[in-house]
Parts: sequence; C-alpha cells; structure tokens
Amino acid sequence: MAQSPLLFTPGPLTTQLGTRRAMLHDWGSREPAFIAMTAELRRRLLDLARGHGSHVAIPIQGSGTFIVEAAIGTLVKPDDVLLVLANGAYGERMIEIARRLGRKVEALRWPEDQAVDPAVVERTLADNPALTHVALVHCETTSGLLNPLAEVAAIVARQQRAFMVDAMSSFGALPLDLRQTPVTAVLASSNKCLEGVPGIAFAAIEKNAIEFAKGVAPSLSLDLYDQWRGFEGNGQWRFTPPVQVVAALIEALRALDAEGGPAARLDRYQKNFRTLADGMARLGFRLFLDERVQAPIIATFRSPKDARFRFDDLYAALAARGFIIYPGKLTRTQSFRIGCIGALQADDLRRLVATIGEVMAERGLLVAPQLDTAHHCSG
Amino acid sequence: MAQSPLLFTPGPLTTQLGTRRAMLHDWGSREPAFIAMTAELRRRLLDLARGHGSHVAIPIQGSGTFIVEAAIGTLVKPDDVLLVLANGAYGERMIEIARRLGRKVEALRWPEDQAVDPAVVERTLADNPALTHVALVHCETTSGLLNPLAEVAAIVARQQRAFMVDAMSSFGALPLDLRQTPVTAVLASSNKCLEGVPGIAFAAIEKNAIEFAKGVAPSLSLDLYDQWRGFEGNGQWRFTPPVQVVAALIEALRALDAEGGPAARLDRYQKNFRTLADGMARLGFRLFLDERVQAPIIATFRSPKDARFRFDDLYAALAARGFIIYPGKLTRTQSFRIGCIGALQADDLRRLVATIGEVMAERGLLVAPQLDTAHHCSG
Repeated sequence: MAQSPLLFTPGPLTTQLGTRRAMLHDWGSREPAFIAMTAELRRRLLDLARGHGSHVAIPIQGSGTFIVEAAIGTLVKPDDVLLVLANGAYGERMIEIARRLGRKVEALRWPEDQAVDPAVVERTLADNPALTHVALVHCETTSGLLNPLAEVAAIVARQQRAFMVDAMSSFGALPLDLRQTPVTAVLASSNKCLEGVPGIAFAAIEKNAIEFAKGVAPSLSLDLYDQWRGFEGNGQWRFTPPVQVVAALIEALRALDAEGGPAARLDRYQKNFRTLADGMARLGFRLFLDERVQAPIIATFRSPKDARFRFDDLYAALAARGFIIYPGKLTRTQSFRIGCIGALQADDLRRLVATIGEVMAERGLLVAPQLDTAHHCSG
Repeated sequence: MAQSPLLFTPGPLTTQLGTRRAMLHDWGSREPAFIAMTAELRRRLLDLARGHGSHVAIPIQGSGTFIVEAAIGTLVKPDDVLLVLANGAYGERMIEIARRLGRKVEALRWPEDQAVDPAVVERTLADNPALTHVALVHCETTSGLLNPLAEVAAIVARQQRAFMVDAMSSFGALPLDLRQTPVTAVLASSNKCLEGVPGIAFAAIEKNAIEFAKGVAPSLSLDLYDQWRGFEGNGQWRFTPPVQVVAALIEALRALDAEGGPAARLDRYQKNFRTLADGMARLGFRLFLDERVQAPIIATFRSPKDARFRFDDLYAALAARGFIIYPGKLTRTQSFRIGCIGALQADDLRRLVATIGEVMAERGLLVAPQLDTAHHCSG
C-alpha cells in the first residue's frame, strides 16, 4: 500500500493512523454497541464546547455545508430574518443557502482581509428589529481570517437575537466555552480541527432553541429537530449513519483528549503556523492577511508577481514529493493556501517549506534570498 | 482488536476486509488522485446499470434518504405532481419527503404483503393527466418484497411520465439494464448490495432529465443538478466528500466485478436466502411474504405466537454469539428481519439458523420439531 501524501489543506486532512484503523470494523447501526458509540460521540462533542446542560449535540451525515443548511432550515422560520456577517466564501454560502430555502436573509459584508466589525453589527441590530438571527463564520477558510466571535456573541445576546456560528475550521482548537460565549447553534464537521475523516457534520444547539423547532425544516433529511428527537428517543440515527466515520471520529476525539484537549491542539497548530509563516517569509512569500486577524488554521499566501509563477506547477511539483497544498479562493487576489491543521508537526511544515524553496529555486523563481544565503553574505 | 459481528441486516452490512482496508489512506478531496477516483466511481456505477450514453451518475454525501430527497427536490418541479406507489415504509417516506419539500404528491397504496399492481398504475396514469412523475420502491426493505419494476417502467414510459426508482436494496444484485428498462432516475446507496460502507448515496439520472433541472432544488446541499455540473466541470465534489468511504466503495465495486458482477452476486444472495428460509422453516418460523413476491435480499419472519417469545431476547442472545439480526418494521404484524446481503456465504446463514435453533431450544420455544428430531422419529 502506497504512503498517503501529507495534506496541508483545510480538510480532508492528514489523520492519525489510529483514527483510520478504527474503520476496520463493521457495525450494525441499530445495535447496542453502536448506540453506545453515538452516545459517546454526542457527549464528547459537548465536552469540547462545555455545552452540557445548555446545549445538545446533533450530528448528521454529510459535509459542513449540510449542517449549515440543516441549522438554517431548522432554526430560521419562514417569518424570521437572518443577518449574515460575511467576509468570505463561507459567509456568502450561508446567504445562498438561506435564499435557496426561501428564508429571508440580509447581509453585512466586509472585504476578505477585514474582520467583522462588532460595532457595525450592534448598530445594525439596534436599528433593525425585524432581524431575528445572526450568523457568523468563526474562521473564514477562504482567507484564514479569524472573526471576533466573543465580541459578536455578546452583542447578539445583548440584542436578544439568535446566534449561529459556522465553527467549521475552528471547533476543537480555537477556544469556545459556551458557558461564557452565548451561541444558539455552533456548527462544525468531523474532518477539520477534530482530525477525524470526513462524512459527519454536527451542531451544538441550545435546548431552548431546538425544542421550539418542530416542523420548521422544509427537509426530512436535514431536519435537526427530528434528528435530535431520534437520538433522544432510542439513541439511534434516524437514517443510516456512516458507522466507520463515526468510529473514526470517536477515536480522533479520544486522541484530542490524549493530546491535552483544544488548548494543546491550538498550541501545536500555532507552532505549525509560525514555522510555515516564518519559513515562507524567508522564501519571499507574503501572507494575504495582517497577522492580527490571522487564525493559525490555514494561511493564504499571495502568488508571486513573477509572471512565470504558476500555482498548478508548484502544486504538481509538491504533490510529486508527497505534499498536497491548496488553491486560493479569494475573489480579487491571486493566492494559494497552506493548511496548518491535521496530524502534522512543525517538522512537517519545515520540510514543506524547504521543498517549496527547492521547487522555486529549480525554476529560478525565488522571490527573495533565503535566510541561509543572507547569512553567508553578512558573514 | 475485537472481531466484528456478522451483520444479517439491510445495511450497514458485513463488508470484506479489503473494502475496509481501502480506508487506511488519506486523500485531499481536490487532488488529481482523488479526482480520478471519483471518475472511476461514477463510471463503475453506470456500468452496473448499463446507463452509459443515456444516464449520468451523481453521487452525494449521506444516506439513502438523502438521495431520495435530492432526486425528488431536483426533478419534481413545484407545478409537477408525483405519484408514489407505496406498499411499505420506504414508499411512505417518499410521500413524506415530497410533502416536506412542498411538492404535490399523490399515492397509490397496497398492503405490505402485496406487490404494486401494474394495471392499476396504468389506469391511474391514463385517468390523471396531471400526474407528471411516478416513484416506485424496487425492493421494499420493510418486508423484503420485490415490486414489478420492468412492468411498471414500461407502463410509465408508455404513458410518457418521468419514473423514479428507489433501488436502495436491489442495485448491484437484482437485474437492472437501463437500455431495456426505461427509468428516469435510479437511486441507491453505497452500503447495500454494493457491499461498501455507508456514507454515500447516488443517482443514475437520464441526461435529458438532469439537463432541465437547473435551479429547481430548494436545497443547496441536495441539488443534483449543481452536483452534476460540479463533477462535469472540474471532476470534483462541490462539498467535502467522505474520501475514505469513496475509496471503500470503489474497492467494493472492484470486488463485485471480481465476483462476476450482479448476476453472480444475486446467485450468492439467492443461495443465502434459500439456506435461511429452509432452515428457519425447519425451526417452525414462517415467512411473512408469499415467496412469489419475495426478493432474496432480506427476509421477514412472523414472530412466533408463543407469548414467551421476545424479539429483544432473541436479538441479545444472538448478538452475544456474534450474529446481529434486525427488528421488524411492519405496521400490523409482529415480525423480525434477517438480511441475506453483504459479505456472507450460505455457511454463515447455516450457522445463524443453527444458533437461532439453539437459542430457541434453550428457552423451550421451538415452535416445531427440528428436522433432525423429525428424522429420528420416522427412523
């Protein structure tokens, strides 16, 4: 069996072998052993966000987009109005989902390199009593930008609106304590900072909110109220769950515990990011974002101005050496992305940067002298 | 690592170890290697139904219910009227899905032990020109009943309506040749007769139908038109796919090929069913269905009349010995189900029947003398 490449992407990620090995079993989805696994999964997800008592964990089949759609469809009623705070593709996707579902939606937009401004949010909510729900993307994977979750949460709570957070690429690493940060629904998926394999997404939803969501969703598959009642009723998924993906996620959650929890994981990701950012700077690459709004999850680099630089060429050369990086998703800036999450250590990032340096040097594309060279010159 | 139990269920099933081992890798979902895997998956799915040229394969994340909802939402327009032919829980589910989506839906119903009657379908379509779509469950997992797919398909085609088939528990084993049997959309999932792991469902849809389905679906996640355009555009899934589940399904499809294709698989399932049905008859258990309408996929047995018989007790005793069976789902008859599909051989069914005999005997619950005993008496 060939070696898997190392994935420097926003997910699917490089996972631990133990996580993948958890998939070597078969389970009946309605047998007691699997019901116990589902209970452990739901408990561990709430543990991470400290949501016990206030929230319930509702996993569903599918990708992150499925849970965002499920949450909007289940929690935003036809007469409600959702305000989406958007500064990237995933905020725009929430707007599109709401429109498709026939829900009323308004948007506040910021440029892709600027964080959501809590003061503007507060003013908008104060001036528009018709707005009932607010949605924010915690870490915008488009750019890697970190939005001010705690500040916005406090404002939305003060203004007494429901608050939905797409925490897809932050959950399990960046701090989130639902006892201190009021959030109606936190949405995330198995295959980002939790380092599971893809196939499940989930919501942690306030009991007070989900209890009043019966019959709201226009979808049977994506009805989080029914899904929750199913779990509470007999401990089972309503519809066939991806049993191996569930097993892998439980194993990944145990590994997260063993690593020291979200704080330890964030520390590792920060070291990964620092190693990457410093190394790429030495190669002459510039981060798209100001580091004050940069999350240590995924880094967006501006493509070099040299007309000979082609991302596809860099991608292919790195892939041939076992490193998978990620294209950019910005609307107006040529860029590419490198993820810092997954079962990666700072040494992996160091090797990636060194390899990028080699590939660029082979093509005569190094945009700045490497540190070693500079050191020689000053010696 | 503990041994997996043997699953005699309608899925998730017992899979081959090679299928599970295919999940030991990581893949980036947008890397060329995975794009090639997606292409192979889509090609192999069409191969099985002989749909090349006429149909396109559109996989999505999720369970079978997700693809049924996606197909109804994408193909049935708000002014269309869907006629569901129902004789079990999965027909009823299609009705519920259509209602939730706000689509117009009518139902023709038969008892759970009777096949859909093609003559009634023909008369209904002739008398009701407003009906635009017809939906049929090929093999009703509720009971194990096989509906007359070819006959209904011919009638729906003659009446010039669109035809959707839930082939969830038949696809890959029971015969389906789209060159001879006109079907607009065939719907199935990874974890039944294909013997993959759960996490993906798919549709094979006529090009002529999907091409006219732009903007119909009220869901972003479950829009099969957009999903199809995504695959055709860059070969990628629109939203993060369960990469390991895809890998397992491809491996399972290769194994299906190696076994000799759907005909060989059906032959094995028929032997499994025969072994089960004959063995259970010797123990005094009665099939719910007349064998003329019984598919060799899953068998429903009437619970013994003895008041001391409890399914949960039989289930637990078998589970403790490594055999997982399945509860009944009939509305009016106490029953339980035993699946014949998955990586099981006739010997596995023989061992299961022998163990059921032991468990029943231990409890003094044998409803008829075992064959061996009878043999002794006559000897």
